[in-house]
Amino acid sequence: MIPIRSVPEVLQRARDLSAPAVLAALERLSPEVRPLVEYHFGLADENGRRIEGASNGKGVRPALAVLSAEAAGSEAAVGVSAAVAIDLVHNFSLIHDDVIDCDHERRHRPTVWSLWGIGRAIIAGDALLALSQQVLLDSAADGLASGAHAGSAARCLAEATSAMIAGQALDMAFESIPGVDVDRCLSMEAGKTGALLGCASSLGAILGGAPDETILALRDFGVQLGLAFQAVDDLLGIWGDSDRTGKPTGNDIRQHKKTLPIAAALAAGDPHSDELARLLATDRLAEEEIARVMVLVERCGGREIAGDEARGRLAAALDALGRAALEERARDELADVARFVVAREY
Amino acid sequence: MIPIRSVPEVLQRARDLSAPAVLAALERLSPEVRPLVEYHFGLADENGRRIEGASNGKGVRPALAVLSAEAAGSEAAVGVSAAVAIDLVHNFSLIHDDVIDCDHERRHRPTVWSLWGIGRAIIAGDALLALSQQVLLDSAADGLASGAHAGSAARCLAEATSAMIAGQALDMAFESIPGVDVDRCLSMEAGKTGALLGCASSLGAILGGAPDETILALRDFGVQLGLAFQAVDDLLGIWGDSDRTGKPTGNDIRQHKKTLPIAAALAAGDPHSDELARLLATDRLAEEEIARVMVLVERCGGREIAGDEARGRLAAALDALGRAALEERARDELADVARFVVAREY
Repeated sequence: MIPIRSVPEVLQRARDLSAPAVLAALERLSPEVRPLVEYHFGLADENGRRIEGASNGKGVRPALAVLSAEAAGSEAAVGVSAAVAIDLVHNFSLIHDDVIDCDHERRHRPTVWSLWGIGRAIIAGDALLALSQQVLLDSAADGLASGAHAGSAARCLAEATSAMIAGQALDMAFESIPGVDVDRCLSMEAGKTGALLGCASSLGAILGGAPDETILALRDFGVQLGLAFQAVDDLLGIWGDSDRTGKPTGNDIRQHKKTLPIAAALAAGDPHSDELARLLATDRLAEEEIARVMVLVERCGGREIAGDEARGRLAAALDALGRAALEERARDELADVARFVVAREY
Repeated sequence: MIPIRSVPEVLQRARDLSAPAVLAALERLSPEVRPLVEYHFGLADENGRRIEGASNGKGVRPALAVLSAEAAGSEAAVGVSAAVAIDLVHNFSLIHDDVIDCDHERRHRPTVWSLWGIGRAIIAGDALLALSQQVLLDSAADGLASGAHAGSAARCLAEATSAMIAGQALDMAFESIPGVDVDRCLSMEAGKTGALLGCASSLGAILGGAPDETILALRDFGVQLGLAFQAVDDLLGIWGDSDRTGKPTGNDIRQHKKTLPIAAALAAGDPHSDELARLLATDRLAEEEIARVMVLVERCGGREIAGDEARGRLAAALDALGRAALEERARDELADVARFVVAREY
């Protein structure tokens, strides 16, 4: 019998497979860009000194990419370039988002732009985005995928990247308007998070030449998981413990983000919704006002609605996994990773 | 006999072929991003009102892409998605460069970031970069190229984009060091300009499935042309008439750019080189100091060396065209476009 792997073991295995490939990819960056990126990935400090045993996030996206190859019947190795490409796109977006949001800290360390300036942070993000396509398209030259399958994978990645950027643009636009309806908020989140997770969850299968219905089921799994993931992130962005999130409690409120709990609370038609709207119209919120917003969002049901959304999307994700003929072990591990992501404390 | 087309006619024909495809590509951008990009392309004013008969630069890059398809024996239509993709990458880099260089004007109009802010300009550039890959990879779905050829083209584009970004990073690094040697300067320019022109000049041939030696000859043509082009740009960046360049005379000196004329003048070992080095070490140069730098660079031979470089690279570009079996008419038009680019007044 095959021993069952726990989620931490599943994530660790994907990290062990993809980490050397990430390192090799970053070595292709120019000497002017590489130190910034290695710092951002937690591989080096700001003076370029190596940090041993570094970890750059939980590694959910790379794990999805590796498992998607296996779920479609390919070797894990086929999913490795997909895992690297997704990781590069994700980190491109983090480096640029930190500039855009003027965030000074990420994972309890100064952000790239706050150390090296806006111009160099822009270039570092750009370099990661271009590199992501190179890594994926090189898999054809490396004999891990056919030229046509590598091209299809690159197309999926480019589409997901575009959708993510569109979601990010909408997220920014929300900051300067008083309220947004829940549907628009969910559509922003589908772009911002759903698209890249949908891509991650199918990219290995695309490289492996899986049939369309397998690819579509895996992509739907990832999109639904992305929405669940984002709903949890939204909850953490308001009520999360700064020790765990690496950002101060109430951070999304401070930045006037219109995330799902806020959008739902504003739309609730509760007497507290009006007080909430008035508070959110304030340019710079004092700390006690942020605390009051947290209470009001909860009273208007925003916290509950986001929790329901997370659970509902998780169920839809698990349902999608049942719609295609997948390798059993990888399918079960995908399901476990999904449950793990949504079970983060909030 | 086929009537001979003049260079303006060659450029206009490529514009006529690619402009509708550029418009169609920009329509895929999200509503939060599209107005900024259409403004940047000169298609709309800052309030979103259409500008008729707009022209976004001379259109050399799209013309090279279309001609590269024809030179390799394909229909011009095969080169159109290549032309659009190259145009999108070029404009992605301009939008980000303007943020990085804090440039307030481009083509006599306010830059995107100066109108909409840094965050939205970053997003607009990102969106163009992602879209460039989509456009190219969609050409397989549109039946204009095989999946494998579209994948090869996307790989060429990603590599050229990475090289361009590395060149830009090096260019930025040069601003904060006192001098650079001529070889390092040329290697920066090969990245910053050569890579994308090399890609433009071969991308249509790659989509059309041309043999490797044809692709390599066309790429070499483009890389050499790019270096010639950049040498002329460097001359214009110092001595160019602001009416023609859209930037103030002496702009590159003001920004402490270490372009070829400067690098060559500093390396000349002329008594004036030391005075030049002292002046360039000044943080903010006064207008009379900029004028003095212009005189010194010329006296140290920097102007002549850059002119020689432009002519030498043009000869190498034309030579490359002779190394592969190309369709005669497209080959002659590529040569004419190359001569035209280098003959810009400086």
